[in-house]
Amino acid sequence: MQMLASDHPTAQHAKLAIDAVLRVRERRPRVHCITNAVAQNFTANLLLAAGAIPSMTVAPDEIADFVGSADALLVNLGTFDRERREAVEIAVNQVVNAGRSWVLDPVFVDRSQPRAQFARSLMARSPTAIRLNAAEFAAVADVQAGEKTPERLALDRRCVVALSGAVDIVTDGARTAKIENGDPLMARVTAMGCAGTALVTAALAVETDRWVATLGALLAFAVAGECAAARARGPGTLAIEILDALANLDRETLLTRARLS
Amino acid sequence: MQMLASDHPTAQHAKLAIDAVLRVRERRPRVHCITNAVAQNFTANLLLAAGAIPSMTVAPDEIADFVGSADALLVNLGTFDRERREAVEIAVNQVVNAGRSWVLDPVFVDRSQPRAQFARSLMARSPTAIRLNAAEFAAVADVQAGEKTPERLALDRRCVVALSGAVDIVTDGARTAKIENGDPLMARVTAMGCAGTALVTAALAVETDRWVATLGALLAFAVAGECAAARARGPGTLAIEILDALANLDRETLLTRARLS
Amino acid sequence: MQMLASDHPTAQHAKLAIDAVLRVRERRPRVHCITNAVAQNFTANLLLAAGAIPSMTVAPDEIADFVGSADALLVNLGTFDRERREAVEIAVNQVVNAGRSWVLDPVFVDRSQPRAQFARSLMARSPTAIRLNAAEFAAVADVQAGEKTPERLALDRRCVVALSGAVDIVTDGARTAKIENGDPLMARVTAMGCAGTALVTAALAVETDRWVATLGALLAFAVAGECAAARARGPGTLAIEILDALANLDRETLLTRARLS
Repeated sequence: MQMLASDHPTAQHAKLAIDAVLRVRERRPRVHCITNAVAQNFTANLLLAAGAIPSMTVAPDEIADFVGSADALLVNLGTFDRERREAVEIAVNQVVNAGRSWVLDPVFVDRSQPRAQFARSLMARSPTAIRLNAAEFAAVADVQAGEKTPERLALDRRCVVALSGAVDIVTDGARTAKIENGDPLMARVTAMGCAGTALVTAALAVETDRWVATLGALLAFAVAGECAAARARGPGTLAIEILDALANLDRETLLTRARLS
Repeated sequence: MQMLASDHPTAQHAKLAIDAVLRVRERRPRVHCITNAVAQNFTANLLLAAGAIPSMTVAPDEIADFVGSADALLVNLGTFDRERREAVEIAVNQVVNAGRSWVLDPVFVDRSQPRAQFARSLMARSPTAIRLNAAEFAAVADVQAGEKTPERLALDRRCVVALSGAVDIVTDGARTAKIENGDPLMARVTAMGCAGTALVTAALAVETDRWVATLGALLAFAVAGECAAARARGPGTLAIEILDALANLDRETLLTRARLS
Repeated sequence: MQMLASDHPTAQHAKLAIDAVLRVRERRPRVHCITNAVAQNFTANLLLAAGAIPSMTVAPDEIADFVGSADALLVNLGTFDRERREAVEIAVNQVVNAGRSWVLDPVFVDRSQPRAQFARSLMARSPTAIRLNAAEFAAVADVQAGEKTPERLALDRRCVVALSGAVDIVTDGARTAKIENGDPLMARVTAMGCAGTALVTAALAVETDRWVATLGALLAFAVAGECAAARARGPGTLAIEILDALANLDRETLLTRARLS
């Protein structure tokens, strides 16, 4: 296990990132989530546990009202129905015009051509951050144009790229950090990744350095997962324990447990 | 802490209210819920824990079949999509014609104009009870017509008004009770309020005095929340523990813990 | 309690069935679920706990992509909206043409005529297995044509019929087994039955003897429910514990606890 020494080059980054995610509790940002039906409940509970105020409507008639009064927007493509697509168009237009942060989670784009196409059209709208795994990366990056690494994708799209895996990579093209925290059992809970991306959205609402915000959210999420795994007896209890762990997480635990490189 | 003395004016009310909510276990009423996607699973589980039989379809083609064989109807506006609106129209017509109870939960009407407008049109259809918080109250009450208090709204609309907050107020205009039970952690679980309103619907299916039914359901809900909070370590475990607490709640615990005024 | 003696006629069946369900962990089949909104999250978590990889989209535009890369399909009618019906038509056509397994769960067909009619049209497409309770059986079987028993329905439709109740019956017409495992508290958790049928779908993806696969899945599900009930304090904890129990279930526990006849 790699401990974070106080003179390590990323120690300052870790502190800033931890400050950012803990600020969610104080500021209580409103996070509007257009997310899939499987993830809605768990995502809302994770945001509440972290201190944010979630709203989840996808109705095109009122999405503008909700996004207009939200501090940041999550767009998760995990349920790709007509109404959600229509809502996404309205919501992204609005948040881009208002200059607020929004995050794209292109779930399962590797399994569906229409979804991958929609994801690429959204990436052209400059999301603040995008979070995806290796298979999803391969499905949406323009490899012919040279987007072969997360750094390159981040530079091209002017966004933070968070590439999830056994180790999470967070890069804005100029700065890259790896998060070695987390627990394999997290992958056995549905919508766990979706909820983590929602936490990124909450952190972006309270921190202007988008790379720091993304890093802080994913670090806190991974550490909460570790704490939860220590108490859990399987995937059922893990999903419950991570909510408690996130609500109870303190700066000391985060600093002690952070394994960044 | 204010204990309930046996000669207190509301002691008899408390007993009647507790009888009403416990009757749900014996009668097992069918409760049809048109509710939001975030709340559906937790609401169904809370109703099952209380002894009711939930059904949750929102498909306009078959909503009439379900409402026709249900004992009461919940209309929650937390997801305001086209299909749900259509289903609500059909369902409310049917339940009003059949003379059965129905409850309106105008979630987040303070965040969306179209939703507030729809809520107001539903309030004109005389729901048996309406449950809302202060912000939602302000968005739907006709203040110019003098609807400045829950009592006045209840009298005008001939329904029970349950105003939720740190203290819950339950009034039919003539009788008003305050419930001081509950736990702040309940607000950190998504759909907690929505599920509480579903329990009100179940109690209305088995008790003709609508004020007593509403009071009983919200008292049992708040006491279950207290019991759950005593075991919980955070919002994750609270959401699970409240289901167990509600299923295991007995008359003695309710009478002992009730803090009504 | 009826123990399973090694020379009992069904002992060999039990072993094969247990092998089939445990194979899900090794093979990690992709299971696409068209299921109701109430059940989606719990179903996905149960499949993950068992070792399968769930996908849950119902969007007609992309259902073909998901079903095309899935190993088996679940069709649950618990939310009967227009989009789901359209998705079901596309998905069933595809899976039938590809010769893969699919399972029908005609939830609540006894409460809705249009749903029962749709279920009957799907039964004509020869599902690999169908799971239903007594009321649902009565609503979809063609009694006039003599479909009065699960065996007869299985023979007529050339599918496995799993009739759920206090004792589960699993038959392909030629072979019939009764599963006496399980716990009454399981009926107090929403979508519990729906999730059990999803596990049948996963087992059918890894075992060609459809009767053995169905038996194994429902046996493992019932035993996991028993193990969970031994730890649970009510329906809330039961829903969590069954996920842990299923993830941790081993061959020895299954063989020891199986009560088949």
